[in-house]
Amino acid sequence: MLSKMTPKKLDFFDLFERHAKTSVEGTALLAETLAGWPGTANNVCRIEEVEHACDNITHMTIDLMRRTYITPFERDEIRELISRLDDVMDHAQGAASRLELFKIQSVPPHMIELGKVLARATEQVHEAVLLLRNIKKAQEIQAYSKEINRLENEGDRILKAGLAELFETEKDPIAIMKLKEVYERLEAATDRCEDVANVLEGILIEHVG
Amino acid sequence: MLSKMTPKKLDFFDLFERHAKTSVEGTALLAETLAGWPGTANNVCRIEEVEHACDNITHMTIDLMRRTYITPFERDEIRELISRLDDVMDHAQGAASRLELFKIQSVPPHMIELGKVLARATEQVHEAVLLLRNIKKAQEIQAYSKEINRLENEGDRILKAGLAELFETEKDPIAIMKLKEVYERLEAATDRCEDVANVLEGILIEHVG
Amino acid sequence: MLSKMTPKKLDFFDLFERHAKTSVEGTALLAETLAGWPGTANNVCRIEEVEHACDNITHMTIDLMRRTYITPFERDEIRELISRLDDVMDHAQGAASRLELFKIQSVPPHMIELGKVLARATEQVHEAVLLLRNIKKAQEIQAYSKEINRLENEGDRILKAGLAELFETEKDPIAIMKLKEVYERLEAATDRCEDVANVLEGILIEHVG
Repeated sequence: MLSKMTPKKLDFFDLFERHAKTSVEGTALLAETLAGWPGTANNVCRIEEVEHACDNITHMTIDLMRRTYITPFERDEIRELISRLDDVMDHAQGAASRLELFKIQSVPPHMIELGKVLARATEQVHEAVLLLRNIKKAQEIQAYSKEINRLENEGDRILKAGLAELFETEKDPIAIMKLKEVYERLEAATDRCEDVANVLEGILIEHVG
Repeated sequence: MLSKMTPKKLDFFDLFERHAKTSVEGTALLAETLAGWPGTANNVCRIEEVEHACDNITHMTIDLMRRTYITPFERDEIRELISRLDDVMDHAQGAASRLELFKIQSVPPHMIELGKVLARATEQVHEAVLLLRNIKKAQEIQAYSKEINRLENEGDRILKAGLAELFETEKDPIAIMKLKEVYERLEAATDRCEDVANVLEGILIEHVG
Repeated sequence: MLSKMTPKKLDFFDLFERHAKTSVEGTALLAETLAGWPGTANNVCRIEEVEHACDNITHMTIDLMRRTYITPFERDEIRELISRLDDVMDHAQGAASRLELFKIQSVPPHMIELGKVLARATEQVHEAVLLLRNIKKAQEIQAYSKEINRLENEGDRILKAGLAELFETEKDPIAIMKLKEVYERLEAATDRCEDVANVLEGILIEHVG
């Protein structure tokens, strides 16, 4: 996945955008995997590959920071942004691998819905990351933040409804525990999108004034 | 609840204080709800209203920050403070709505105790927020931080004791899972009070030197 | 444990190092406790003592910060570093006390393994903290960060494998819940080592440029 990249030519903006775009692919794949489970079990290792690709972009960013004298933002902001971006795909992959490891038999409708919300939140994060390059549009960050916040609230609502339904209908406590684990990872991934938005707001507000 | 507010006259200190005061009301209501459950189930939607009121104050703060050229603290500190304040009531409301959604039959004594600790921690947060306006008293933040820290430790101790008792006495694993969810949200809310204290310490230490 | 300390002579570097070193002792003791459980139940109160010792060092650091006019790093960095260091032992102690409180009968091999990974991560944190005093070696932080990151990933992998095995072999859902609680605390402690590494990177990158 990273073989097409020629690291020397990539700057910080390229790396942030590449990371966000790769996460969009990863969470889209996860949403698809949840919707088609268990027929889509082969996707799990592809999601793990996406997560490795994100890890690589993170390391490239840290490396570039070390080799660069003048950076477009504070070093601390760069590190914070790429780390928070990385958390999203970490949790998304955590959800995917639990589906397989815990031998989940079928995915409930609320979980499919939560997967879609995560995919949409990641798309918004990608759009927000694109603002970094075009500082004139910095004010737009508020609109993306608001939408990511709305999706995070929706994710939280779905999680609660999903658990309530699970407690109501599933009589096997171990089956509940397994699905609860996956739900929580999906919700954590959606949560982390909000952290990215926060870091972006911090950077853009700082640099626009 | 917010109808009495005339936003134009409110400054940052008013908004922080209003948020903290609203959270005090919300967590007091939650403590009362836990103590009287299930007779107090009607309170849950009132707690949700309090949480919405806090959300509104958060948005007003972010808006004010955008419209204001010179702010009393760094923009980042303002955003961090109002976000961390908001987390407390988020988790408190999460606990309340789970009581209802999961159809909790009765609330164990440890959970009532934990609700009281949360209410007390939120009161301390409110007192600490009042220091922002009176920078001369900034040193007092240490006393509030210490007390919030003590309450957070007490919360943690109660959570552990509550879970131990639950594992000992409750034989239905699904009932345990439901109560464990509520316990964890209450403990997370108490935890977040410590985060607010940390942000306040950061601001006050910075500005007093 | 702290009786040997003569606070007046300790500077910030001494306190950070003392904290990290004490945590190394605490997590080594925890790893030993897990490996020998339940024969090692007497260790639990010793681990709690270590955690109190860490708390004391944290308070001494905050106190020293208040009494000191010129600090070696930003006040915020000092507060952040000591707080994140403190989180590690907090979670480690949380794992230990749950073993006892929940009357865990026996510790599964994956959990013993996770305890060893935590102990190793804490050793790396200690090594990384030693760099603060010798700013010329600041670049080495990257190597420690990388290793801590690797251990954190390994911890995550062990947690997932441990849970999968538990779901597969343990038929009592309450026994699963108890062990899951301990697993999660151990994993959280390992996670927090990464947070410390992040703060250290922030400080060292900032001050080396």
